[in-house]
Amino acid sequence: MACCGNCFCCQCCCRERETRTPEELTILGEIRDEENEILPRKDYESLDYDRCISEPYVEVLEGMDNKKAKKYEAVRWIMVFAIGVTVGLVGLFVDFFVRLFTNIKFTLVGDSVEKCSDKGCLLLSLLELLAFNLIFIFIASVLVLIEPVAAGSGIPEIKSYLNGVKIPGIVRLRTFVCKAAGVLFSVAGGLFVGKEGPMIHSGAIVGAGLPQFQSITFKRINFDFPYFRSDRDKRDFVSAGAAAGVAAAFGAPIGGTLFSLEEGSSFWNQALTWKVLFCSMSATFTLNFFRSGINFNKWGSFQLPGLLNFGEFKCSNGDKNCHLWTAVDLAFFVLMGVVGGLLGALFNCINRSLAKYRIRHIHPKAKFIRVLESLLVTMVTTVVIFAASMLLGECRDLSSPTTHNATLASTDDINSTIRPFFCPNKTYNDMATLFFNPQEAAIHQLFHQDGTFSPVTLSVFFLLYFLLSCWTYGVSVPSGLFVPCLLCGAAFGRLIANILKVKLGMDLYSGTFALIGAAAFLGGVVRMTISLTVILIESTNEITYGLPIMITLMVAKWTGDIFNKGIYDIHVELKGVPLLDWETEVEMDKLTASDIMEPNLTYVYPHTRVQSLVSILRTTVYHAFPVVTENRKNEQDFMKGNILISNNIRFKKSSIVSRVGEQRRRCQSMKSYPSSELRNVCDEQSAVVEPSEEGEDLLQQMLERRHAPYPSLYPDQSPSEEWTMEERFRPLTFHGLILRSQLVNLLIRGVCYAENQSSATQPRLSYAEMTEDYPRFPDIHDLDLALLNPRMIVDVTPYMNPCPYTVSPNTRISQVFNLFRTMGLRHLPVVNAIGEIVGIITRHNLTHEFLVAKLRQHYITI
Amino acid sequence: MACCGNCFCCQCCCRERETRTPEELTILGEIRDEENEILPRKDYESLDYDRCISEPYVEVLEGMDNKKAKKYEAVRWIMVFAIGVTVGLVGLFVDFFVRLFTNIKFTLVGDSVEKCSDKGCLLLSLLELLAFNLIFIFIASVLVLIEPVAAGSGIPEIKSYLNGVKIPGIVRLRTFVCKAAGVLFSVAGGLFVGKEGPMIHSGAIVGAGLPQFQSITFKRINFDFPYFRSDRDKRDFVSAGAAAGVAAAFGAPIGGTLFSLEEGSSFWNQALTWKVLFCSMSATFTLNFFRSGINFNKWGSFQLPGLLNFGEFKCSNGDKNCHLWTAVDLAFFVLMGVVGGLLGALFNCINRSLAKYRIRHIHPKAKFIRVLESLLVTMVTTVVIFAASMLLGECRDLSSPTTHNATLASTDDINSTIRPFFCPNKTYNDMATLFFNPQEAAIHQLFHQDGTFSPVTLSVFFLLYFLLSCWTYGVSVPSGLFVPCLLCGAAFGRLIANILKVKLGMDLYSGTFALIGAAAFLGGVVRMTISLTVILIESTNEITYGLPIMITLMVAKWTGDIFNKGIYDIHVELKGVPLLDWETEVEMDKLTASDIMEPNLTYVYPHTRVQSLVSILRTTVYHAFPVVTENRKNEQDFMKGNILISNNIRFKKSSIVSRVGEQRRRCQSMKSYPSSELRNVCDEQSAVVEPSEEGEDLLQQMLERRHAPYPSLYPDQSPSEEWTMEERFRPLTFHGLILRSQLVNLLIRGVCYAENQSSATQPRLSYAEMTEDYPRFPDIHDLDLALLNPRMIVDVTPYMNPCPYTVSPNTRISQVFNLFRTMGLRHLPVVNAIGEIVGIITRHNLTHEFLVAKLRQHYITI
Repeated sequence: MACCGNCFCCQCCCRERETRTPEELTILGEIRDEENEILPRKDYESLDYDRCISEPYVEVLEGMDNKKAKKYEAVRWIMVFAIGVTVGLVGLFVDFFVRLFTNIKFTLVGDSVEKCSDKGCLLLSLLELLAFNLIFIFIASVLVLIEPVAAGSGIPEIKSYLNGVKIPGIVRLRTFVCKAAGVLFSVAGGLFVGKEGPMIHSGAIVGAGLPQFQSITFKRINFDFPYFRSDRDKRDFVSAGAAAGVAAAFGAPIGGTLFSLEEGSSFWNQALTWKVLFCSMSATFTLNFFRSGINFNKWGSFQLPGLLNFGEFKCSNGDKNCHLWTAVDLAFFVLMGVVGGLLGALFNCINRSLAKYRIRHIHPKAKFIRVLESLLVTMVTTVVIFAASMLLGECRDLSSPTTHNATLASTDDINSTIRPFFCPNKTYNDMATLFFNPQEAAIHQLFHQDGTFSPVTLSVFFLLYFLLSCWTYGVSVPSGLFVPCLLCGAAFGRLIANILKVKLGMDLYSGTFALIGAAAFLGGVVRMTISLTVILIESTNEITYGLPIMITLMVAKWTGDIFNKGIYDIHVELKGVPLLDWETEVEMDKLTASDIMEPNLTYVYPHTRVQSLVSILRTTVYHAFPVVTENRKNEQDFMKGNILISNNIRFKKSSIVSRVGEQRRRCQSMKSYPSSELRNVCDEQSAVVEPSEEGEDLLQQMLERRHAPYPSLYPDQSPSEEWTMEERFRPLTFHGLILRSQLVNLLIRGVCYAENQSSATQPRLSYAEMTEDYPRFPDIHDLDLALLNPRMIVDVTPYMNPCPYTVSPNTRISQVFNLFRTMGLRHLPVVNAIGEIVGIITRHNLTHEFLVAKLRQHYITI
Repeated sequence: MACCGNCFCCQCCCRERETRTPEELTILGEIRDEENEILPRKDYESLDYDRCISEPYVEVLEGMDNKKAKKYEAVRWIMVFAIGVTVGLVGLFVDFFVRLFTNIKFTLVGDSVEKCSDKGCLLLSLLELLAFNLIFIFIASVLVLIEPVAAGSGIPEIKSYLNGVKIPGIVRLRTFVCKAAGVLFSVAGGLFVGKEGPMIHSGAIVGAGLPQFQSITFKRINFDFPYFRSDRDKRDFVSAGAAAGVAAAFGAPIGGTLFSLEEGSSFWNQALTWKVLFCSMSATFTLNFFRSGINFNKWGSFQLPGLLNFGEFKCSNGDKNCHLWTAVDLAFFVLMGVVGGLLGALFNCINRSLAKYRIRHIHPKAKFIRVLESLLVTMVTTVVIFAASMLLGECRDLSSPTTHNATLASTDDINSTIRPFFCPNKTYNDMATLFFNPQEAAIHQLFHQDGTFSPVTLSVFFLLYFLLSCWTYGVSVPSGLFVPCLLCGAAFGRLIANILKVKLGMDLYSGTFALIGAAAFLGGVVRMTISLTVILIESTNEITYGLPIMITLMVAKWTGDIFNKGIYDIHVELKGVPLLDWETEVEMDKLTASDIMEPNLTYVYPHTRVQSLVSILRTTVYHAFPVVTENRKNEQDFMKGNILISNNIRFKKSSIVSRVGEQRRRCQSMKSYPSSELRNVCDEQSAVVEPSEEGEDLLQQMLERRHAPYPSLYPDQSPSEEWTMEERFRPLTFHGLILRSQLVNLLIRGVCYAENQSSATQPRLSYAEMTEDYPRFPDIHDLDLALLNPRMIVDVTPYMNPCPYTVSPNTRISQVFNLFRTMGLRHLPVVNAIGEIVGIITRHNLTHEFLVAKLRQHYITI
């Protein structure tokens, strides 16, 4: 329990200081915290999950009928199935080779240890083990050098992606190859890492890549398959792929589905959920099918659970009084949850400091330093494993095989992985059994071995594992965290069970305590909650563990959350990714949209000269521009190009739907119907209007008069520094939103018309042409200016999104946040009661740090 | 297989005709279909899940800090736990009494049959059984007479409620009592009904009622507990309660959570999902705890699964070649899925016709007719059960107990429920074993009995069960559908297994086929998909069944969907509830918001006379009114009350946030900060503005001039019949939305001011006063007009929702639909580019029928 004392004192100093972000600091005028300054804060781009209903898209819609929609849907199902099968095969591949390498390694080294008698020969065995591990890790490390994004578990990256942040290179084929091959070697190399996280990442890449049928790395792979070329579709497939990864890794298809729902899709879409579940099931059962066939030669049966499974928890049949757990145990589980939460917080705190140290001192240096670090970790780990097994292990009695046939099989199974190193017959070396086995086997030992482990062994094992796995996570090899955490926690749980059983003489089932310990520690570290609960329940394949696992995880999460965030969130934060939480705090509702929006806008007009567009695109970094017309009292001031004015007025009039116009349109279309009652209504109404052309004219005049005071103008100049506030913030009627990529696309493809021509002469782009370059659109700086005529005019109206969701300036933050997050928006225009745009809200305006800063400002003001 | 031939031919005639809704018919001018005319189409009210940020609510927000929010959150967790425990206890209560009554009944009657020798004595046994059943059903039927909403399974009602439709009486205490007591008697009465659906409904009522701490039925129960008084909060608790109901009924907490997510919460909210899962777990384990204690006297252990569980599927230990299922079996499962889908469609089709017949011919008549129908069904069922058991059963060999200790226990268990009626030793009457047992025992028999059932018995059982349960669902007793469907399908699956095993000599596990058959038929009838998959997986407690169950359910759903909808959707449709689907069809995107909106608006002005409000409220049925000011070219026309004009103008000006005003506000508040850089920016900006008061004035003038052409006026009259279209559809600037209930509340509480006073003299209501009458607000017709001064003026602006979500008229249907459904809206104003309201979209404008009609109109027009 010494570690617990340490942990408390460490918490105090480690507890996250309330860090202030650059925005906040700017607002408050404070000097930046030295510690935080070093952390990079990249300007991540958002993904765009909302549909842009531009004219080319409307053309696609008009060509769409139910038959086509069904075909499209069928392609989706096939894709999802293909993703599931592929992910299953990837899991099979990784598992097979990890198993192969590990078996070769442990068999060779184990044999050499067993045959050993004098001291020098043990050293030889150690060198043998070291050679194996260093070679494996060197390969893994070099693979990560090729593609640095492949380091770590990949879950923070997938989480960010599904949350709507674009992280470069995260779903590329090269990353996939490095990750899948790298994790194989890093696990085989004996590091304290799991293969689950990297498998989830691999799954996500398969999901992103397979439906695109092309690759940047291998330019040749391009089948010209034009489906699914939008962030929205891609996200759905990435969800499915990530879920399949979880399903393959844990044999938990439902847990996988919940994982991708929890992390990704912010709204529950039944069609998508079905596909995700189907994808997960495909992955699980592809894996099962091949593993049953290859490993056990039972082709056609599906009896094997996922890659990681916890074996069957059951009482021996003879024992009528045996319970897996009772109501009394629940109290201990809660306590274990608390301790697990504290340990997890300590783990996260240490790991965070390490990660910061790496960012500051290792990443800026030459890349081979990272390889050296990996090799150092490997060396230490190997020596520790070896030394502990040889020197600290105790010889314990094997559990006598029970007389029941039923349990014999499973006892056999468990006893096949014990290590008797230097121990007499019928006993085994408990430390070596835990350290000198694949991690999955060690978990099985802790869960199901009836024979006892000594408390000293368990404590030492826990401590070494805790420290080494904490050091390892963050080293630049592909490395998961699930299995090390489970193993570490299982040792802790088993230790508690030992103490209660031996010291207090309680009647309990050790395996359950080991499982709960594993859940508590894992929950304290990752804090993943619902999906984690379901994954653990599915892995144990025992529904009665639902309540204890859930309570333990909840307590662990609550305890840990007092001190810091989950490990994945910490790494997301260190990367500076603007992740959006589930919801805002209640207190934030004191702010309104106008408090947090960005009021300094760079905008474009419906008809703009090429030169202005180029200068706007080259001098700003915004990813979207509102398309506006000006509400000016004095139109003469900006009268510079008559044709633009008339074009803009014409556009503005056509873009404004009025009730009377709408009603007339309906009446006219209604007159073709035979319904007598309705015809009468319409006749009566049109009778008032139609008798003379005068009525029509009157309306026309009314409409024109309404807009006459504010004709739309084209200043051909962007807001300049010398402008007064009134000039800079003059009223602008909002008409739509156009993306930077779309504008660049228009310029590159020469979509513009000459001043003396009508805008109808402008060439039209199809939807396929608009999305051809997805997902990597050309940059404005790639544009050859010599090819452009700067005096030509671009009519952006057909390509803008004319009806994005908007909010009013008085909307409360919770409503803004819900809309933004649920609909997966990228830019949310703030429009006032008379249709003027007053600001734009993006992801950065909704991050927790920004809101906290604004709320503080709000309190100071009032 | 004769039934299958029938089913195909019946499908053709039963296949749902494309029915046209009243709206569509009106549009197309056709005469209404005689058949559909009789179906009532009530005008259901929507629930309002969006927050209304009126001034009283803002006051609440301002008083909210993190401490209060945490307390509030804690209360929620406690509530959720209380709901879970209560639902568990309700389940316990129902289960206990059903068990008790059924046991008494079957023991008495069974004994009398066993002792029998001559024919006349059998008749006596039948009469005994009849007496029991008729009494039980009579009680159940009378309970439903007291509260007619308690009839049926309740799932369609809960589905509607969670979808956002208010169905009167659905979550009242009286309904709860009638439902919970009624289902007990209807199950005990031997009808072919399950208790699962009613338990879900009961759970939902507990969820709705418990946090309110009051009841309409018992007026005394009112603890003055003011939390959670909004549709939004109530919905969350209903979700949790319904999930707890599922969890208690099936022992499937994850399935329950998914059920309420799938049916209800349209967006994934982690905090809510946690609570729902916790509630489900509480229910499951409360039930387990007490059942373990009461039934087995094992207090403190939690070894019992849910009320309905399928027992353990496993091979006998000795048999190494035994598989629960293999890849080859999957092909049969797909075929069974197809057949299950067809059978389910047939079931739904017959049940639909029956339900229509009931609506037309039974419901309009005296209520006791319904009781008579229930008694008739009971009588027929009882006679059929009795006669089939006595006359059609075959004597089959018992399976010899295997030599393994392990399986002995479960075999014992299974054999305890066989019925040996008139059969020699070591054999049993297979028909009686199925019919003369509680349904759960019969399911266990079909899943686990190693002894065979004869194909004839299974066919007869299936046919009788199919027809009788189809007739029973819809009779006015509380009646679930799950268990009858499972039993029916299990018989079908077992039949297939028999045929394959005996005729084709295949090596298969009969229990798996029975399970898959049950899934196929249940899937074909209810089509509930994801949650159903998870519920079945959890009930079997065997993760390896995931894939076959999922594939079977999917195939069954797809097959059934060709012919008709799921049974719950059919009953929702027959009730005329405007349910919103998951998403719109792709084709609908050809329509825009302006195509489907309601353009004829009844609106109120910010300051309105009491007399106008009363007349608007009395002459319209709308539930919400947009608050607008008019954009008029000639303000003189309507100059009727000067004070109202100036009040309205003042309001309008204050309600419009402009960029320049916003920026100035920020600069002013910024100047109090020490940040030098920012201060400089602001100083520079304000320098331009502030030197003289002139700048301010200029801006003021600008703002005023901008609004000057359109002063807001108060016509004191609603749109009249003689108005021209221009008058009727004149431009209105949208400022907010106010609900009918809020207006009535204002009038009743005398919130108004005299013409010669300032609007500041109007009394102010607190949030508590606004929500006091929730959920049943007073009607306008309850208002005593004598107490009102008709010339007084009401300022509605503090009480309206100033920033509801809005859409532009060009927004595509899919976007409108997503926004509406995901955010749980009730009214969605359509606002054009210059802030004028052009229409309102409600739930009725988004139903599938309405959209189809509009799309057809769209095609005709183009």
